Amino acid sequence: MLKLYNRERSGNCYKARLMLALLGLEYEQVPIRREGNGRNQLPADFEKLNPLRQIPVLVADGRHFWGTIPILVYLARRYGGESWLPSDAEGEAEVTQWLSLGQNEIFQGLGRARSMRARRWHGYGTLEEAHAIAQVALRALEGRLGDHDWLALDRPTIADVACYSYTVFAPEGGISLKPYPAVRAWLRRMEGLSGYLPIPPYDGAGGPLVE
Amino acid sequence: MLKLYNRERSGNCYKARLMLALLGLEYEQVPIRREGNGRNQLPADFEKLNPLRQIPVLVADGRHFWGTIPILVYLARRYGGESWLPSDAEGEAEVTQWLSLGQNEIFQGLGRARSMRARRWHGYGTLEEAHAIAQVALRALEGRLGDHDWLALDRPTIADVACYSYTVFAPEGGISLKPYPAVRAWLRRMEGLSGYLPIPPYDGAGGPLVE
Repeated sequence: MLKLYNRERSGNCYKARLMLALLGLEYEQVPIRREGNGRNQLPADFEKLNPLRQIPVLVADGRHFWGTIPILVYLARRYGGESWLPSDAEGEAEVTQWLSLGQNEIFQGLGRARSMRARRWHGYGTLEEAHAIAQVALRALEGRLGDHDWLALDRPTIADVACYSYTVFAPEGGISLKPYPAVRAWLRRMEGLSGYLPIPPYDGAGGPLVE
Repeated sequence: MLKLYNRERSGNCYKARLMLALLGLEYEQVPIRREGNGRNQLPADFEKLNPLRQIPVLVADGRHFWGTIPILVYLARRYGGESWLPSDAEGEAEVTQWLSLGQNEIFQGLGRARSMRARRWHGYGTLEEAHAIAQVALRALEGRLGDHDWLALDRPTIADVACYSYTVFAPEGGISLKPYPAVRAWLRRMEGLSGYLPIPPYDGAGGPLVE
């Protein structure tokens, strides 16, 4: 049985849950909550599962995997076959480009902006810096999606799952998607996929951007 | 013929050059220099190669790949076989865990500290914040390497190449590796690999940490 250490509103945990849903996999959840100081309330021996003390963590076949991208890679290779993550050099490199965008500019921009604006976690840097990085990410997405349906290949892959999460939360970080019509159309395509799992409702301070 | 858009002192470009060297591959270099403001001096149409306008970029078989991890994945799959990047779900997920550490905590900690201290690029956040993230990364590396020779598997993989670069530059960011003997022993093992390419000499302001 698969087991996911999961916090509902974590954008990274949501990526793992979305992938599990798209693959139609059953799994057990270990719910993690936040403490008053905004840190995750982790089990005492959690460091054995992840030395970074971060969620999500996936337990599968007696092994455990930490980090969002590694979990997506594991699920795609183990249960999804070539469709979600090709194994030829060119195809896998194309997918990995967008996995990197998701981890770098999308998280450092849109992800941090969302956390700062909800006043849950400040991390490092300012909201203005996060907004500037978010625009770099959104321009790269818009450039690709202007003439392609999906990020890496001619079908959805784990690249789309990895980039969807923090992009769809843009309004919660005070970032408008109005200047990015191709990005908005792609979000709607993601939401039409069989097995799609809706995003968790907003629960932070301030409220998302209303347009 | 492989072609690499490369700047000698970029820690990410060095990862790509190290991988090319370890695989014994010949390639052409397109040298990139910095402008006075610290930005890379890129060719006019560079955005066609990488929408993020970052280096390294690898051109191979008429295709181009941006981002350091995608380049490592491409080279390993195309030229390195199972040895440098396994294709079974468990093995690939293990490798990907450390690729993520390299892109997240190692770059955000050790990489940014190095850039800030050399006064070349400030980016976002403070040197103190970067140093705190660097300690998280180094503790995770030390924990694994205390009883393993290599990061992901029982042999060197692209995970070791990805994490070596900014870790070996720790003194340039003012970070001591003295508390991390297993990390230092692993750096020496990397340097003993057949085909190893030495790190480029220091050229920034301030000077590296002397111990």
